[in-house]
Amino acid sequence: MAIRVAVDAMGGDHAPGVVIEGALRAVCESEGRLHVLLYGPEDVLRLALKAYPESPHISVVHAPQVIGMGDSPVAAVRAKPRSSIHCGLMGHKEGRADAFLSAGNTGATVAASLFVLGRLPGVFRPSLPSCYPTTEGACTILDVGSNMDSKPEHLLQFAKMGSAYARIISDIAKPRIGLLSVGEEPGKGNELVRTTHELLVNAIDLNFIGNVEGRDILHHRADVVVCDGFVGNVVLKLGESITTALPSMIGQELQRLTTELSVMQTIEQMFTGLKRRFDPEEYGGGSPLLGVEGEVFILHGSSSARAIERCLLMAARAAKLDLTGAIRRALSP
Amino acid sequence: MAIRVAVDAMGGDHAPGVVIEGALRAVCESEGRLHVLLYGPEDVLRLALKAYPESPHISVVHAPQVIGMGDSPVAAVRAKPRSSIHCGLMGHKEGRADAFLSAGNTGATVAASLFVLGRLPGVFRPSLPSCYPTTEGACTILDVGSNMDSKPEHLLQFAKMGSAYARIISDIAKPRIGLLSVGEEPGKGNELVRTTHELLVNAIDLNFIGNVEGRDILHHRADVVVCDGFVGNVVLKLGESITTALPSMIGQELQRLTTELSVMQTIEQMFTGLKRRFDPEEYGGGSPLLGVEGEVFILHGSSSARAIERCLLMAARAAKLDLTGAIRRALSP
Repeated sequence: MAIRVAVDAMGGDHAPGVVIEGALRAVCESEGRLHVLLYGPEDVLRLALKAYPESPHISVVHAPQVIGMGDSPVAAVRAKPRSSIHCGLMGHKEGRADAFLSAGNTGATVAASLFVLGRLPGVFRPSLPSCYPTTEGACTILDVGSNMDSKPEHLLQFAKMGSAYARIISDIAKPRIGLLSVGEEPGKGNELVRTTHELLVNAIDLNFIGNVEGRDILHHRADVVVCDGFVGNVVLKLGESITTALPSMIGQELQRLTTELSVMQTIEQMFTGLKRRFDPEEYGGGSPLLGVEGEVFILHGSSSARAIERCLLMAARAAKLDLTGAIRRALSP
Repeated sequence: MAIRVAVDAMGGDHAPGVVIEGALRAVCESEGRLHVLLYGPEDVLRLALKAYPESPHISVVHAPQVIGMGDSPVAAVRAKPRSSIHCGLMGHKEGRADAFLSAGNTGATVAASLFVLGRLPGVFRPSLPSCYPTTEGACTILDVGSNMDSKPEHLLQFAKMGSAYARIISDIAKPRIGLLSVGEEPGKGNELVRTTHELLVNAIDLNFIGNVEGRDILHHRADVVVCDGFVGNVVLKLGESITTALPSMIGQELQRLTTELSVMQTIEQMFTGLKRRFDPEEYGGGSPLLGVEGEVFILHGSSSARAIERCLLMAARAAKLDLTGAIRRALSP
């Protein structure tokens, strides 16, 4: 039977167009193993769908309300109980879909997920992990901004959830877990990290390799890098800026070395390839919201059809392999 | 009159050789406006100096004890009151030198500086700023690791000291101060950053431009980026790893594009240039210890003669322009 993913068709800067396009690409790619349920105002979606070829693997489910990208998350979730986000999550909760995906208002999606699905037993704070490009492909880093001012027990849970995620989705048997700090020695770091280090050492179910430093991320010393959401967000955005800042730095260097067109063209192509590595749309396109009772996937509002396609395939994979079940087991005492 | 800099000739992985070489290069470069006082065991230094041409701008001052790179900082400072670090700092304190420089044990240099020179009035925590390469040259980031678990009033002082430093040493009339956070809005960030934001808004003597994000550092949105030492250290080391991780990533991309030798060579040269930008030895080679009663400069233990040369010239410049006086004024209520 096909995996059914409920999609917030009204979420994102270019909805519903790119969402529909991404859904069509994903069902085409999956050759009948994926069915997408588009949630949103039926008339709007039916009209939008006319621009695309029909597919038996796409259905429309009516949800009359839409939460805007700029709406206050908690207020919007309360005020719009029939939004595409809310209805899609209900569809997942009640078993009509195996996962839910949105490129809409992230705060509202998180708030509605907590409200509709609830947390897994014992979870303090759900977390959105991020995929970080490395010399060996990509590592997972969490948390990257949903949680400020974390406590050691929160970081321990991030480590457990991140480990289960890397095992299931990245197919790594024993993911190496690194704790982001300012030195390798256990005593290095701030109070949060020093206490967390002790908790991780004692977590026998984790392949904890100790502290990792800022320089170890790109060199892929760990498969999962655990940190507080503030630090993770700074690291994530600094990483994203490497390919935007570097071309001008490299251009300045090249000017001194050559004016040969063929060299410039090769370097430009090389940069296109490099950008692709650092491009969220290429290396995954979205993140699961770890720690809730269900498979919820969240993308940037600016996501392209390609990003939505890739995230839909990841959501289907997570549902098939029971990511949430793996996380529940990882967190059980 | 020449500026006199006291130098810990026994500090660093390759002391006293590279220290002497760096000193010779600096006095040569400064054409008589710099005099270097080398502190260390006289017999050792006299012997080492024989390998180099004599200079009238270099003297030896006897200090019989040496603090090793691996010594416990506070214990070493207590146990070795006649170390090259201690004697050099005393020389500065008692007016025989206008500044002090060491590439030795950083912890011991900081501890001895606090012990011998003391803090400037009202300083909570001295800070070592770092120079960070950007699309427009370099910005200053502080703190980068000397202070963990900072409080808002510490970050306010880092901002004031960093602003004075950028004004004096980088010659920027009104340095733009950015507070590192996870979003531009004042309410974004962890508790530390949100409270610090309020303090910075009310600091009328600062050109505070608001929060900056991880992606803004390389793009030089601020001249001075203020953050807690834990975050700053992660950011610093991640930045240093860009040029070590990128060649392998770029190599993988290039393999697909070309095998032409001339292109490869150009790109290799381009990388040498790029590395130079990210190389601490090139973009300054050391940092002043801001917040103590004197001009103290600290370098990595692995510093080359070139790094020591550049840091010596910066120390002379700081002494000449009275960096410490500017910081004292910036901190006075």
